[in-house]
Amino acid sequence: MKRTVTVQVPATTANCGPGFDAVGIACTLYNQLQLTITDSGGVQIENRGEGSETLPTDKTNIAYQAVQAVFNQVGYACPGLSLVMTNNIPLARGLGSSAAAIVAGLFTANEILDLPLERAELLELATAMEGHPDNVAPALYGGITVSAMQQAKVETLRLLPQRPLRLVVAIPAFTLSTKAARQVLPKQVSLADSVFNVSRAALLVGALASGEYIHLATALDDRLHQPYRQALIPGMPDVLAAAKSAGAFGAALSGAGPCLIAFTETNAEAIGQAMVAAFARHQVTADYVGLSIDTEGAKILP
Amino acid sequence: MKRTVTVQVPATTANCGPGFDAVGIACTLYNQLQLTITDSGGVQIENRGEGSETLPTDKTNIAYQAVQAVFNQVGYACPGLSLVMTNNIPLARGLGSSAAAIVAGLFTANEILDLPLERAELLELATAMEGHPDNVAPALYGGITVSAMQQAKVETLRLLPQRPLRLVVAIPAFTLSTKAARQVLPKQVSLADSVFNVSRAALLVGALASGEYIHLATALDDRLHQPYRQALIPGMPDVLAAAKSAGAFGAALSGAGPCLIAFTETNAEAIGQAMVAAFARHQVTADYVGLSIDTEGAKILP
Repeated sequence: MKRTVTVQVPATTANCGPGFDAVGIACTLYNQLQLTITDSGGVQIENRGEGSETLPTDKTNIAYQAVQAVFNQVGYACPGLSLVMTNNIPLARGLGSSAAAIVAGLFTANEILDLPLERAELLELATAMEGHPDNVAPALYGGITVSAMQQAKVETLRLLPQRPLRLVVAIPAFTLSTKAARQVLPKQVSLADSVFNVSRAALLVGALASGEYIHLATALDDRLHQPYRQALIPGMPDVLAAAKSAGAFGAALSGAGPCLIAFTETNAEAIGQAMVAAFARHQVTADYVGLSIDTEGAKILP
Repeated sequence: MKRTVTVQVPATTANCGPGFDAVGIACTLYNQLQLTITDSGGVQIENRGEGSETLPTDKTNIAYQAVQAVFNQVGYACPGLSLVMTNNIPLARGLGSSAAAIVAGLFTANEILDLPLERAELLELATAMEGHPDNVAPALYGGITVSAMQQAKVETLRLLPQRPLRLVVAIPAFTLSTKAARQVLPKQVSLADSVFNVSRAALLVGALASGEYIHLATALDDRLHQPYRQALIPGMPDVLAAAKSAGAFGAALSGAGPCLIAFTETNAEAIGQAMVAAFARHQVTADYVGLSIDTEGAKILP
């Protein structure tokens, strides 16, 4: 049995417009987690980088809980441990920071015990902890994932991009809880809006799977969640439009937001600047980062 | 200018479970249409095969109207014509017989005039005549199509199967109009059912695009139209279950029905027999046919 293990886990963008609660994409922005088994009997948790001042360092820490979930599942009595998280994924912005923490905890614990659990079992555990699969699946597998819940079971298909695709993420300087973003959603929707999203979600996956990205212009439209959530994000329609005007195929809310993400093959800098400028016109301070699709998912570092 | 042209157009299955009004697949079952320009000044229409006793032979014939739509669009004054339709696609069963007739008419007329219209323009005309793109798109292009309407414009992505897939169609001995099958649909649906279909439609396209057909078992489920339409098709849940029990990945309503279609890689005969037997238990006479995916779409015959 190993004494220490370090894992890298990607940020993820979920929904991607119409693929609400189903589609997720892993991005080339990473958190790291180092797990060390100690004989001290205690638990030491250190957070570095994003959220280091606010993330808990006690047993309510979500990465710790994920480590413990694996230990419990396989009946391992851990003498003591230390966790060091190095976070680059901004918190509560719609880039899957909690999914990354969960996956990191599960992955390191499984690795340190010499892989008692299959990756699919880790996905089940992660989905149960996170409440939905759309971020944890790409964080674990990398690439583009399509997930469907069958009662409490999750089923995930993974696709790799046929051609490079750039993801330009505009990151506003405020946070939004997924819970708050879910409370604004209606219980009932029109069949017409539902059919609208079915066709766009189908087109989105087809475009991503085939590399025919030109279809993303139509395929990123959504009527099931974005119209309700845009009230929570000042300037959202303008920022999405600015991305398109600057040359992106299209743009969408990243997860539950407030990050907005544009899809493009070229011109990422200009698109990012246009999105930040559009946010600024609505008195929202924002930054942007140009990413690509991560194809590896959670990965042990040497 | 040619004097006579013969085209072959495939049957199509639309919706494929969750992909309501979006996903369509061309099947290896064909109608033929021969268009001949005559100097007689008159219109002769002959229908052979399926529907030959009921299909109109006057200017209300839909293939004739499609021919005329192309002639009108390009301003061609036709001296006279004869049409001979040889139909293998059963009528009003959910296998795209009207889409095939429309596409056949447009395609022959365009061919005889030496291709004044692009294929995308034929798709626009066909969609306008049919009212929705999900059958006309695969009839025209072949393969698996994902279509989305953008106001009155249609956008279609075409995918080819990565591995052979068999389509087993159970054909009951009664017809169902698409109009009647639309009238039973609700105007409002729950967000949960809508999200259910979004995830399945995304998974369906991902499975078809990647050849990972194992996901079809989950991906063929639907909550937006099939639950409402099954009252129109005696035994439908039993027939779908029988297909699965006999080894199919899954099964769904073909278009608006009443045909039911199973997806499989092997065992097509046994699946077809099980579906017919299940229909029989509900006093419905049915037949079955084993098809594959057509990859060519509408095609001029020598």
